[in-house]
Amino acid sequence: MRIGIVAPSCRLEEAVAARLPGLVRDALGPQTPDLVIHPQCFLSEGHFAGPDAARADAFVELANDPSIDAIWFARGGYGACRMVDLALPRLRSTAGDKAYLGYSDAGFLLAGLYAQGIGRVAHGPMPSDMKRAGGDAAVLRAVRWLIDPQPMAKAQGQPVAAFNLTVLSQLLGTTLQPDLTDHVLMVEEVGEYMYRIDRSLFHLTSNPALRTISGLMLGRCSDVPDNDPDFVLTEEEVAQHWCRHAGISYLGRADIGHDADNQVVPFGPS
Amino acid sequence: MRIGIVAPSCRLEEAVAARLPGLVRDALGPQTPDLVIHPQCFLSEGHFAGPDAARADAFVELANDPSIDAIWFARGGYGACRMVDLALPRLRSTAGDKAYLGYSDAGFLLAGLYAQGIGRVAHGPMPSDMKRAGGDAAVLRAVRWLIDPQPMAKAQGQPVAAFNLTVLSQLLGTTLQPDLTDHVLMVEEVGEYMYRIDRSLFHLTSNPALRTISGLMLGRCSDVPDNDPDFVLTEEEVAQHWCRHAGISYLGRADIGHDADNQVVPFGPS
Repeated sequence: MRIGIVAPSCRLEEAVAARLPGLVRDALGPQTPDLVIHPQCFLSEGHFAGPDAARADAFVELANDPSIDAIWFARGGYGACRMVDLALPRLRSTAGDKAYLGYSDAGFLLAGLYAQGIGRVAHGPMPSDMKRAGGDAAVLRAVRWLIDPQPMAKAQGQPVAAFNLTVLSQLLGTTLQPDLTDHVLMVEEVGEYMYRIDRSLFHLTSNPALRTISGLMLGRCSDVPDNDPDFVLTEEEVAQHWCRHAGISYLGRADIGHDADNQVVPFGPS
Repeated sequence: MRIGIVAPSCRLEEAVAARLPGLVRDALGPQTPDLVIHPQCFLSEGHFAGPDAARADAFVELANDPSIDAIWFARGGYGACRMVDLALPRLRSTAGDKAYLGYSDAGFLLAGLYAQGIGRVAHGPMPSDMKRAGGDAAVLRAVRWLIDPQPMAKAQGQPVAAFNLTVLSQLLGTTLQPDLTDHVLMVEEVGEYMYRIDRSLFHLTSNPALRTISGLMLGRCSDVPDNDPDFVLTEEEVAQHWCRHAGISYLGRADIGHDADNQVVPFGPS
Protein backbone atom coordinates (compact mmCIF):
# COMPACT_ATOMS: atom_id res chain seq x y z
CA MET A 1 0.00 0.00 0.00
CA ARG A 2 1.55 3.26 -1.18
CA ILE A 3 0.08 6.72 -0.57
CA GLY A 4 1.39 9.56 -2.72
CA ILE A 5 1.46 13.02 -1.18
CA VAL A 6 1.48 16.17 -3.33
CA ALA A 7 0.84 19.85 -2.58
CA PRO A 8 -1.44 21.52 -5.17
CA SER A 9 -1.76 24.71 -3.10
CA CYS A 10 0.69 25.90 -0.41
CA ARG A 11 3.90 24.12 0.58
CA LEU A 12 4.15 21.47 3.27
CA GLU A 13 6.30 22.31 6.29
CA GLU A 14 9.35 20.04 6.61
CA ALA A 15 8.57 19.45 10.30
CA VAL A 16 5.15 18.01 9.45
CA ALA A 17 6.63 15.76 6.78
CA ALA A 18 9.36 14.59 9.17
CA ARG A 19 6.97 13.58 11.95
CA LEU A 20 4.26 12.03 9.74
CA PRO A 21 5.81 8.57 9.03
CA GLY A 22 6.53 7.89 12.71
CA LEU A 23 3.04 8.92 13.77
CA VAL A 24 1.47 6.57 11.25
CA ARG A 25 3.85 3.69 12.03
CA ASP A 26 3.28 3.94 15.78
CA ALA A 27 -0.49 3.88 15.29
CA LEU A 28 -0.90 1.34 12.52
CA GLY A 29 2.02 -1.09 13.02
CA PRO A 30 2.09 -3.77 10.32
CA GLN A 31 -0.76 -2.00 8.45
CA THR A 32 1.48 1.06 7.88
CA PRO A 33 1.43 2.20 4.26
CA ASP A 34 4.42 3.63 2.43
CA LEU A 35 4.10 7.40 2.40
CA VAL A 36 5.59 8.76 -0.82
CA ILE A 37 6.06 12.46 -0.17
CA HIS A 38 6.77 14.08 -3.54
CA PRO A 39 9.69 16.59 -3.35
CA GLN A 40 7.35 19.14 -4.97
CA CYS A 41 5.68 19.50 -1.55
CA PHE A 42 8.68 21.52 -0.39
CA LEU A 43 9.03 23.84 -3.36
CA SER A 44 8.23 27.48 -2.80
CA GLU A 45 7.21 30.17 -5.26
CA GLY A 46 5.48 33.14 -3.69
CA HIS A 47 2.21 31.91 -2.22
CA PHE A 48 2.54 28.45 -3.71
CA ALA A 49 4.36 25.12 -3.35
CA GLY A 50 6.27 25.80 -6.56
CA PRO A 51 5.12 27.03 -9.98
CA ASP A 52 1.70 26.02 -11.31
CA ALA A 53 3.35 23.63 -13.79
CA ALA A 54 5.42 21.94 -11.06
CA ARG A 55 2.36 21.40 -8.89
CA ALA A 56 0.44 19.99 -11.87
CA ASP A 57 3.34 17.76 -12.93
CA ALA A 58 3.79 16.24 -9.47
CA PHE A 59 0.09 15.49 -9.17
CA VAL A 60 -0.08 13.95 -12.66
CA GLU A 61 3.08 11.90 -12.03
CA LEU A 62 1.74 10.28 -8.86
CA ALA A 63 -1.88 9.99 -10.08
CA ASN A 64 -0.75 8.14 -13.21
CA ASP A 65 1.75 5.93 -11.34
CA PRO A 66 0.30 2.38 -11.15
CA SER A 67 2.42 1.63 -8.05
CA ILE A 68 0.60 4.35 -6.07
CA ASP A 69 -2.77 3.40 -4.55
CA ALA A 70 -4.00 6.73 -3.24
CA ILE A 71 -3.29 10.47 -3.48
CA TRP A 72 -3.32 12.57 -0.33
CA PHE A 73 -3.26 16.34 -0.70
CA ALA A 74 -0.70 17.73 1.72
CA ARG A 75 -2.26 21.04 2.61
CA GLY A 76 -4.79 23.68 1.58
CA GLY A 77 -4.25 27.42 1.40
CA TYR A 78 -4.65 28.58 -2.16
CA GLY A 79 -3.50 27.49 -5.58
CA ALA A 80 -5.28 24.33 -6.73
CA CYS A 81 -7.46 26.28 -9.19
CA ARG A 82 -4.24 27.42 -10.91
CA MET A 83 -3.07 23.90 -11.70
CA VAL A 84 -6.25 21.87 -12.10
CA ASP A 85 -6.66 22.66 -15.82
CA LEU A 86 -3.00 21.78 -16.37
CA ALA A 87 -3.44 18.42 -14.67
CA LEU A 88 -6.82 16.78 -15.23
CA PRO A 89 -6.55 16.45 -19.03
CA ARG A 90 -3.30 14.48 -18.60
CA LEU A 91 -4.68 11.81 -16.27
CA ARG A 92 -4.67 8.25 -17.60
CA SER A 93 -6.74 5.22 -16.66
CA THR A 94 -4.40 4.39 -13.77
CA ALA A 95 -5.57 7.62 -12.12
CA GLY A 96 -9.09 6.19 -12.02
CA ASP A 97 -8.08 3.32 -9.74
CA LYS A 98 -7.05 5.58 -6.87
CA ALA A 99 -8.55 7.29 -3.86
CA TYR A 100 -8.08 11.08 -3.50
CA LEU A 101 -8.35 12.85 -0.15
CA GLY A 102 -8.17 16.47 0.96
CA TYR A 103 -10.36 19.49 1.68
CA SER A 104 -10.44 23.28 1.69
CA ASP A 105 -8.57 24.59 -1.38
CA ALA A 106 -8.08 20.99 -2.58
CA GLY A 107 -11.83 21.09 -3.24
CA PHE A 108 -11.09 22.47 -6.71
CA LEU A 109 -9.41 19.13 -7.50
CA LEU A 110 -12.00 17.01 -5.70
CA ALA A 111 -14.72 18.77 -7.71
CA GLY A 112 -12.97 18.31 -11.03
CA LEU A 113 -12.16 14.66 -10.35
CA TYR A 114 -15.70 13.93 -9.22
CA ALA A 115 -17.18 15.86 -12.17
CA GLN A 116 -15.19 13.62 -14.51
CA GLY A 117 -15.83 10.42 -12.57
CA ILE A 118 -12.14 9.82 -11.83
CA GLY A 119 -11.28 7.67 -8.78
CA ARG A 120 -12.82 7.62 -5.33
CA VAL A 121 -12.86 11.16 -4.01
CA ALA A 122 -13.24 12.24 -0.39
CA HIS A 123 -13.24 15.36 1.73
CA GLY A 124 -11.12 14.83 4.83
CA PRO A 125 -8.03 15.72 6.89
CA MET A 126 -4.63 16.40 5.33
CA PRO A 127 -1.06 15.96 6.65
CA SER A 128 -0.89 19.65 7.62
CA ASP A 129 -3.73 19.05 10.11
CA MET A 130 -1.08 17.44 12.35
CA LYS A 131 -0.31 20.97 13.55
CA ARG A 132 -3.75 21.35 15.16
CA ALA A 133 -4.45 20.39 18.77
CA GLY A 134 -5.74 16.85 18.41
CA GLY A 135 -4.50 16.80 14.84
CA ASP A 136 -2.78 13.43 15.14
CA ALA A 137 -6.18 11.76 15.39
CA ALA A 138 -7.37 13.66 12.31
CA VAL A 139 -4.36 12.54 10.30
CA LEU A 140 -4.78 8.91 11.36
CA ARG A 141 -8.49 9.05 10.50
CA ALA A 142 -7.47 10.14 7.01
CA VAL A 143 -4.82 7.42 6.62
CA ARG A 144 -7.25 4.71 7.72
CA TRP A 145 -9.67 5.79 5.00
CA LEU A 146 -6.91 5.93 2.39
CA ILE A 147 -5.96 2.33 3.25
CA ASP A 148 -9.56 1.18 2.94
CA PRO A 149 -11.56 3.83 1.01
CA GLN A 150 -15.10 2.76 1.82
CA PRO A 151 -18.24 4.84 1.28
CA MET A 152 -19.64 6.65 4.33
CA ALA A 153 -21.45 4.20 6.61
CA LYS A 154 -23.91 6.83 7.82
CA ALA A 155 -24.90 7.82 4.29
CA GLN A 156 -26.69 4.46 3.79
CA GLY A 157 -26.30 4.57 0.04
CA GLN A 158 -27.39 8.19 -0.36
CA PRO A 159 -24.78 10.10 -2.38
CA VAL A 160 -22.90 12.81 -0.50
CA ALA A 161 -20.33 15.50 -1.27
CA ALA A 162 -18.53 18.01 0.95
CA PHE A 163 -16.82 21.29 0.20
CA ASN A 164 -15.52 24.47 1.65
CA LEU A 165 -18.30 26.96 0.99
CA THR A 166 -16.16 29.62 -0.70
CA VAL A 167 -14.34 27.08 -2.86
CA LEU A 168 -17.60 25.58 -4.11
CA SER A 169 -18.99 29.07 -4.76
CA GLN A 170 -15.97 29.98 -6.84
CA LEU A 171 -16.19 26.95 -9.10
CA LEU A 172 -19.92 27.23 -9.85
CA GLY A 173 -20.56 27.69 -13.54
CA THR A 174 -17.16 26.30 -14.52
CA THR A 175 -16.38 22.85 -15.91
CA LEU A 176 -15.23 21.84 -12.42
CA GLN A 177 -18.81 21.96 -11.10
CA PRO A 178 -19.88 18.35 -10.48
CA ASP A 179 -23.41 17.02 -10.96
CA LEU A 180 -24.72 16.81 -7.40
CA THR A 181 -28.27 15.75 -8.27
CA ASP A 182 -29.83 13.92 -5.30
CA HIS A 183 -26.69 14.38 -3.20
CA VAL A 184 -26.57 15.48 0.40
CA LEU A 185 -24.27 18.50 0.11
CA MET A 186 -22.15 19.42 3.14
CA VAL A 187 -20.40 22.79 3.32
CA GLU A 188 -18.05 24.23 5.92
CA GLU A 189 -16.31 27.57 6.24
CA VAL A 190 -13.44 29.23 8.06
CA GLY A 191 -12.37 32.82 8.59
CA GLU A 192 -15.18 34.48 6.62
CA TYR A 193 -17.47 37.28 7.80
CA MET A 194 -21.08 36.22 8.31
CA TYR A 195 -22.18 38.47 5.43
CA ARG A 196 -19.85 36.51 3.17
CA ILE A 197 -21.19 33.19 4.42
CA ASP A 198 -24.65 34.55 3.62
CA ARG A 199 -23.57 35.73 0.17
CA SER A 200 -21.92 32.40 -0.68
CA LEU A 201 -25.05 30.55 0.43
CA PHE A 202 -27.10 32.86 -1.83
CA HIS A 203 -24.76 31.84 -4.64
CA LEU A 204 -24.98 28.09 -4.03
CA THR A 205 -28.72 27.97 -3.54
CA SER A 206 -29.35 30.22 -6.58
CA ASN A 207 -27.54 27.87 -8.95
CA PRO A 208 -30.25 25.92 -10.82
CA ALA A 209 -28.15 22.73 -10.98
CA LEU A 210 -27.47 22.81 -7.24
CA ARG A 211 -31.18 23.11 -6.53
CA THR A 212 -31.39 19.42 -7.48
CA ILE A 213 -29.50 18.30 -4.35
CA SER A 214 -31.50 16.24 -1.89
CA GLY A 215 -30.51 18.55 0.94
CA LEU A 216 -27.88 20.78 2.53
CA MET A 217 -25.95 20.10 5.73
CA LEU A 218 -23.96 22.88 7.37
CA GLY A 219 -20.52 22.02 8.71
CA ARG A 220 -18.71 24.17 11.23
CA CYS A 221 -18.10 27.84 10.43
CA SER A 222 -15.06 28.74 12.51
CA ASP A 223 -13.08 31.93 13.14
CA VAL A 224 -15.91 34.14 11.86
CA PRO A 225 -14.68 37.74 12.26
CA ASP A 226 -16.98 40.21 14.02
CA ASN A 227 -19.39 41.92 11.65
CA ASP A 228 -19.89 45.68 11.99
CA PRO A 229 -22.80 46.22 12.41
CA ASP A 230 -23.60 42.87 13.99
CA PHE A 231 -25.10 40.57 11.36
CA VAL A 232 -27.68 39.36 13.95
CA LEU A 233 -28.36 36.14 12.03
CA THR A 234 -26.36 33.02 12.91
CA GLU A 235 -24.74 30.68 10.40
CA GLU A 236 -27.57 28.19 10.83
CA GLU A 237 -30.21 30.90 10.37
CA VAL A 238 -28.66 32.05 7.10
CA ALA A 239 -28.38 28.45 5.86
CA GLN A 240 -32.02 27.86 6.72
CA HIS A 241 -33.01 31.15 5.07
CA TRP A 242 -31.41 30.31 1.75
CA CYS A 243 -32.59 26.69 1.76
CA ARG A 244 -36.16 27.87 2.36
CA HIS A 245 -35.83 30.50 -0.39
CA ALA A 246 -34.54 27.90 -2.88
CA GLY A 247 -36.83 25.03 -1.93
CA ILE A 248 -33.87 22.96 -0.69
CA SER A 249 -34.21 20.75 2.40
CA TYR A 250 -32.01 21.87 5.29
CA LEU A 251 -30.77 18.70 6.94
CA GLY A 252 -28.93 20.09 9.98
CA ARG A 253 -25.27 20.14 10.93
CA ALA A 254 -22.43 18.14 9.34
CA ASP A 255 -19.40 16.98 11.31
CA ILE A 256 -16.86 18.71 9.09
CA GLY A 257 -14.77 21.87 9.36
CA HIS A 258 -11.31 23.35 9.55
CA ASP A 259 -10.51 21.49 12.78
CA ALA A 260 -9.27 18.19 14.21
CA ASP A 261 -12.77 16.69 14.29
CA ASN A 262 -13.17 17.07 10.52
CA GLN A 263 -14.64 13.77 9.32
CA VAL A 264 -13.81 11.90 6.14
CA VAL A 265 -16.70 12.29 3.68
CA PRO A 266 -16.32 9.99 0.67
CA PHE A 267 -18.18 11.47 -2.31
CA GLY A 268 -20.97 9.50 -3.95
CA PRO A 269 -21.86 6.79 -4.63
CA SER A 270 -23.10 8.64 -7.71
CA MET B 1 -36.93 65.21 -13.88
CA ARG B 2 -37.27 63.04 -10.76
CA ILE B 3 -34.60 60.69 -9.44
CA GLY B 4 -35.71 58.03 -6.96
CA ILE B 5 -33.17 56.91 -4.36
CA VAL B 6 -33.44 53.54 -2.62
CA ALA B 7 -31.03 51.48 -0.53
CA PRO B 8 -31.01 47.78 -1.51
CA SER B 9 -27.99 47.01 0.70
CA CYS B 10 -26.85 49.07 3.72
CA ARG B 11 -28.59 52.19 5.06
CA LEU B 12 -27.85 55.71 3.92
CA GLU B 13 -26.46 58.07 6.54
CA GLU B 14 -28.80 60.98 7.32
CA ALA B 15 -25.91 63.46 6.96
CA VAL B 16 -25.31 62.38 3.38
CA ALA B 17 -29.00 62.63 2.53
CA ALA B 18 -29.21 66.07 4.14
CA ARG B 19 -26.30 67.53 2.18
CA LEU B 20 -27.10 65.93 -1.18
CA PRO B 21 -29.88 68.26 -2.46
CA GLY B 22 -27.87 71.44 -1.78
CA LEU B 23 -24.78 70.02 -3.47
CA VAL B 24 -26.76 69.17 -6.60
CA ARG B 25 -28.66 72.48 -6.64
CA ASP B 26 -25.50 74.54 -6.27
CA ALA B 27 -23.84 72.71 -9.16
CA LEU B 28 -26.73 72.27 -11.58
CA GLY B 29 -28.94 75.34 -10.99
CA PRO B 30 -32.07 75.24 -13.14
CA GLN B 31 -31.15 71.73 -14.36
CA THR B 32 -31.50 70.40 -10.81
CA PRO B 33 -33.67 67.26 -10.66
CA ASP B 34 -36.03 66.40 -7.83
CA LEU B 35 -34.31 63.89 -5.57
CA VAL B 36 -36.91 61.53 -4.12
CA ILE B 37 -35.15 59.85 -1.22
CA HIS B 38 -37.32 56.91 -0.17
CA PRO B 39 -37.72 56.69 3.65
CA GLN B 40 -36.59 53.06 3.37
CA CYS B 41 -33.04 54.40 2.95
CA PHE B 42 -32.97 55.16 6.67
CA LEU B 43 -34.37 51.89 7.97
CA SER B 44 -32.02 49.66 9.89
CA GLU B 45 -32.13 45.94 10.53
CA GLY B 46 -28.82 44.38 11.48
CA HIS B 47 -26.50 44.77 8.53
CA PHE B 48 -29.21 46.10 6.22
CA ALA B 49 -31.32 49.15 5.40
CA GLY B 50 -34.40 47.40 6.74
CA PRO B 51 -35.78 43.90 6.16
CA ASP B 52 -35.32 42.21 2.77
CA ALA B 53 -39.03 42.75 1.99
CA ALA B 54 -38.86 46.48 2.82
CA ARG B 55 -35.83 46.99 0.57
CA ALA B 56 -37.55 45.09 -2.25
CA ASP B 57 -40.83 46.99 -1.77
CA ALA B 58 -39.16 50.41 -1.88
CA PHE B 59 -37.27 49.53 -5.04
CA VAL B 60 -40.37 48.11 -6.75
CA GLU B 61 -42.45 51.13 -5.71
CA LEU B 62 -40.09 53.67 -7.25
CA ALA B 63 -39.15 51.55 -10.28
CA ASN B 64 -42.82 51.08 -11.19
CA ASP B 65 -43.72 54.76 -10.52
CA PRO B 66 -44.27 56.50 -13.89
CA SER B 67 -43.46 59.89 -12.35
CA ILE B 68 -39.89 58.74 -11.54
CA ASP B 69 -37.35 58.93 -14.38
CA ALA B 70 -34.34 57.22 -12.86
CA ILE B 71 -33.36 55.01 -9.92
CA TRP B 72 -30.17 55.76 -8.03
CA PHE B 73 -28.90 53.19 -5.56
CA ALA B 74 -27.93 55.01 -2.35
CA ARG B 75 -25.06 52.87 -1.18
CA GLY B 76 -23.36 49.49 -1.44
CA GLY B 77 -22.23 47.28 1.41
CA TYR B 78 -24.13 44.03 1.31
CA GLY B 79 -27.72 42.94 0.87
CA ALA B 80 -28.91 43.39 -2.73
CA CYS B 81 -28.73 39.65 -3.41
CA ARG B 82 -31.23 39.14 -0.58
CA MET B 83 -33.92 41.30 -2.18
CA VAL B 84 -33.35 40.97 -5.92
CA ASP B 85 -35.52 37.84 -6.30
CA LEU B 86 -38.26 39.55 -4.30
CA ALA B 87 -38.17 42.60 -6.57
CA LEU B 88 -37.44 41.83 -10.22
CA PRO B 89 -40.51 39.62 -10.87
CA ARG B 90 -42.77 42.50 -9.74
CA LEU B 91 -41.42 45.14 -12.13
CA ARG B 92 -43.90 46.48 -14.70
CA SER B 93 -43.34 48.12 -18.07
CA THR B 94 -42.84 51.54 -16.43
CA ALA B 95 -39.66 50.13 -14.88
CA GLY B 96 -38.28 49.61 -18.38
CA ASP B 97 -38.33 53.34 -19.17
CA LYS B 98 -35.84 54.23 -16.45
CA ALA B 99 -32.11 54.55 -15.92
CA TYR B 100 -30.53 52.63 -13.01
CA LEU B 101 -27.21 53.62 -11.49
CA GLY B 102 -24.98 52.18 -8.79
CA TYR B 103 -22.03 49.86 -8.26
CA SER B 104 -20.40 47.46 -5.81
CA ASP B 105 -23.11 45.39 -4.08
CA ALA B 106 -25.76 47.06 -6.30
CA GLY B 107 -24.18 45.00 -9.09
CA PHE B 108 -26.54 42.14 -8.19
CA LEU B 109 -29.41 44.40 -9.30
CA LEU B 110 -27.57 45.84 -12.31
CA ALA B 111 -26.85 42.28 -13.46
CA GLY B 112 -30.41 41.10 -13.02
CA LEU B 113 -31.88 44.17 -14.74
CA TYR B 114 -29.45 43.88 -17.64
CA ALA B 115 -30.00 40.11 -17.92
CA GLN B 116 -33.72 40.79 -18.32
CA GLY B 117 -33.27 43.81 -20.60
CA ILE B 118 -34.98 46.21 -18.19
CA GLY B 119 -34.11 49.92 -18.48
CA ARG B 120 -30.75 51.59 -19.08
CA VAL B 121 -28.30 50.24 -16.54
CA ALA B 122 -24.99 51.81 -15.51
CA HIS B 123 -22.15 51.25 -13.09
CA GLY B 124 -21.24 54.52 -11.39
CA PRO B 125 -21.04 56.62 -8.22
CA MET B 126 -23.72 56.60 -5.54
CA PRO B 127 -24.86 59.22 -2.98
CA SER B 128 -22.70 57.63 -0.27
CA ASP B 129 -19.60 58.47 -2.33
CA MET B 130 -20.05 62.05 -1.08
CA LYS B 131 -18.13 60.94 2.01
CA ARG B 132 -14.94 60.36 0.00
CA ALA B 133 -12.31 63.04 -0.55
CA GLY B 134 -13.35 64.49 -3.90
CA GLY B 135 -16.64 62.66 -3.60
CA ASP B 136 -18.76 65.68 -4.54
CA ALA B 137 -17.44 65.47 -8.09
CA ALA B 138 -18.27 61.77 -8.21
CA VAL B 139 -21.82 62.38 -7.07
CA LEU B 140 -22.34 65.19 -9.60
CA ARG B 141 -20.90 62.98 -12.37
CA ALA B 142 -23.54 60.43 -11.48
CA VAL B 143 -26.40 62.96 -11.40
CA ARG B 144 -25.41 64.35 -14.79
CA TRP B 145 -25.65 60.87 -16.28
CA LEU B 146 -28.98 60.21 -14.60
CA ILE B 147 -30.37 63.43 -16.15
CA ASP B 148 -29.14 62.43 -19.60
CA PRO B 149 -28.37 58.68 -19.62
CA GLN B 150 -26.33 58.39 -22.78
CA PRO B 151 -24.15 55.44 -23.80
CA MET B 152 -20.44 55.75 -23.14
CA ALA B 153 -18.77 58.02 -25.69
CA LYS B 154 -15.47 56.16 -25.56
CA ALA B 155 -17.13 52.80 -26.21
CA GLN B 156 -17.91 53.81 -29.81
CA GLY B 157 -20.84 51.45 -30.05
CA GLN B 158 -19.03 48.46 -28.53
CA PRO B 159 -21.12 47.03 -25.68
CA VAL B 160 -19.63 47.36 -22.21
CA ALA B 161 -20.46 46.23 -18.69
CA ALA B 162 -18.77 46.89 -15.35
CA PHE B 163 -18.88 45.06 -12.05
CA ASN B 164 -17.20 44.58 -8.75
CA LEU B 165 -15.15 41.43 -9.24
CA THR B 166 -16.43 39.54 -6.19
CA VAL B 167 -20.05 40.47 -6.89
CA LEU B 168 -19.83 39.22 -10.47
CA SER B 169 -18.11 36.05 -9.29
CA GLN B 170 -20.88 35.34 -6.80
CA LEU B 171 -23.67 35.64 -9.34
CA LEU B 172 -22.09 33.43 -12.01
CA GLY B 173 -24.26 30.42 -12.77
CA THR B 174 -27.40 32.06 -11.36
CA THR B 175 -30.27 33.62 -13.30
CA LEU B 176 -28.75 37.03 -12.57
CA GLN B 177 -25.80 36.34 -14.90
CA PRO B 178 -26.28 38.56 -17.97
CA ASP B 179 -25.28 37.59 -21.49
CA LEU B 180 -22.05 39.53 -22.03
CA THR B 181 -21.22 38.14 -25.46
CA ASP B 182 -18.96 40.59 -27.34
CA HIS B 183 -18.90 43.00 -24.39
CA VAL B 184 -15.89 44.75 -22.98
CA LEU B 185 -16.09 43.64 -19.35
CA MET B 186 -14.62 45.94 -16.70
CA VAL B 187 -14.04 44.70 -13.16
CA GLU B 188 -12.80 46.50 -10.07
CA GLU B 189 -12.11 45.36 -6.53
CA VAL B 190 -11.65 46.72 -3.02
CA GLY B 191 -10.34 45.27 0.22
CA GLU B 192 -9.58 41.78 -1.07
CA TYR B 193 -6.31 39.86 -0.70
CA MET B 194 -4.43 39.34 -3.96
CA TYR B 195 -5.00 35.58 -3.73
CA ARG B 196 -8.73 36.28 -3.69
CA ILE B 197 -8.48 38.61 -6.68
CA ASP B 198 -6.62 35.81 -8.43
CA ARG B 199 -9.24 33.24 -7.43
CA SER B 200 -12.14 35.43 -8.55
CA LEU B 201 -10.43 36.02 -11.89
CA PHE B 202 -10.01 32.24 -12.23
CA HIS B 203 -13.74 31.99 -11.64
CA LEU B 204 -14.75 34.63 -14.20
CA THR B 205 -12.42 33.47 -16.92
CA SER B 206 -13.36 29.79 -16.40
CA ASN B 207 -17.05 30.46 -17.01
CA PRO B 208 -17.79 29.30 -20.56
CA ALA B 209 -20.36 32.06 -21.20
CA LEU B 210 -17.96 34.77 -20.03
CA ARG B 211 -15.31 33.50 -22.44
CA THR B 212 -17.42 35.08 -25.19
CA ILE B 213 -16.61 38.65 -24.04
CA SER B 214 -14.59 40.71 -26.47
CA GLY B 215 -12.08 41.56 -23.74
CA LEU B 216 -11.42 42.31 -20.09
CA MET B 217 -10.39 45.67 -18.61
CA LEU B 218 -9.11 45.83 -15.04
CA GLY B 219 -10.34 48.70 -12.87
CA ARG B 220 -8.59 49.76 -9.72
CA CYS B 221 -7.98 47.20 -6.97
CA SER B 222 -7.72 49.28 -3.81
CA ASP B 223 -6.99 48.53 -0.15
CA VAL B 224 -5.49 45.13 -0.97
CA PRO B 225 -4.36 43.66 2.39
CA ASP B 226 -0.81 42.34 2.62
CA ASN B 227 -0.53 38.71 1.60
CA ASP B 228 1.54 36.36 3.78
CA PRO B 229 3.66 35.12 2.09
CA ASP B 230 3.85 37.91 -0.47
CA PHE B 231 1.79 36.98 -3.52
CA VAL B 232 4.55 38.36 -5.78
CA LEU B 233 2.17 38.82 -8.73
CA THR B 234 0.45 42.19 -9.17
CA GLU B 235 -3.23 42.65 -9.96
CA GLU B 236 -2.44 43.31 -13.61
CA GLU B 237 -0.21 40.22 -13.81
CA VAL B 238 -2.96 38.00 -12.46
CA ALA B 239 -5.52 39.53 -14.85
CA GLN B 240 -3.17 38.94 -17.75
CA HIS B 241 -2.47 35.39 -16.56
CA TRP B 242 -6.12 34.39 -16.50
CA CYS B 243 -6.98 36.16 -19.76
CA ARG B 244 -4.14 34.33 -21.48
CA HIS B 245 -5.22 31.01 -19.95
CA ALA B 246 -8.83 31.53 -21.14
CA GLY B 247 -8.09 33.00 -24.56
CA ILE B 248 -9.64 36.33 -23.57
CA SER B 249 -8.11 39.62 -24.77
CA TYR B 250 -6.71 41.74 -21.94
CA LEU B 251 -7.50 45.33 -22.86
CA GLY B 252 -5.67 47.24 -20.10
CA ARG B 253 -6.94 49.35 -17.23
CA ALA B 254 -10.46 50.74 -16.74
CA ASP B 255 -11.14 54.02 -14.97
CA ILE B 256 -13.42 52.54 -12.31
CA GLY B 257 -13.01 51.62 -8.67
CA HIS B 258 -14.14 52.27 -5.12
CA ASP B 259 -12.97 55.89 -5.25
CA ALA B 260 -13.97 59.40 -6.28
CA ASP B 261 -12.65 58.93 -9.83
CA ASN B 262 -15.02 56.04 -10.48
CA GLN B 263 -16.50 56.69 -13.93
CA VAL B 264 -20.04 56.10 -15.09
CA VAL B 265 -20.13 53.01 -17.34
CA PRO B 266 -23.50 52.61 -19.07
CA PHE B 267 -24.07 48.96 -19.95
CA GLY B 268 -24.60 47.96 -23.55
CA PRO B 269 -25.72 48.82 -26.13
CA SER B 270 -26.50 45.12 -26.36
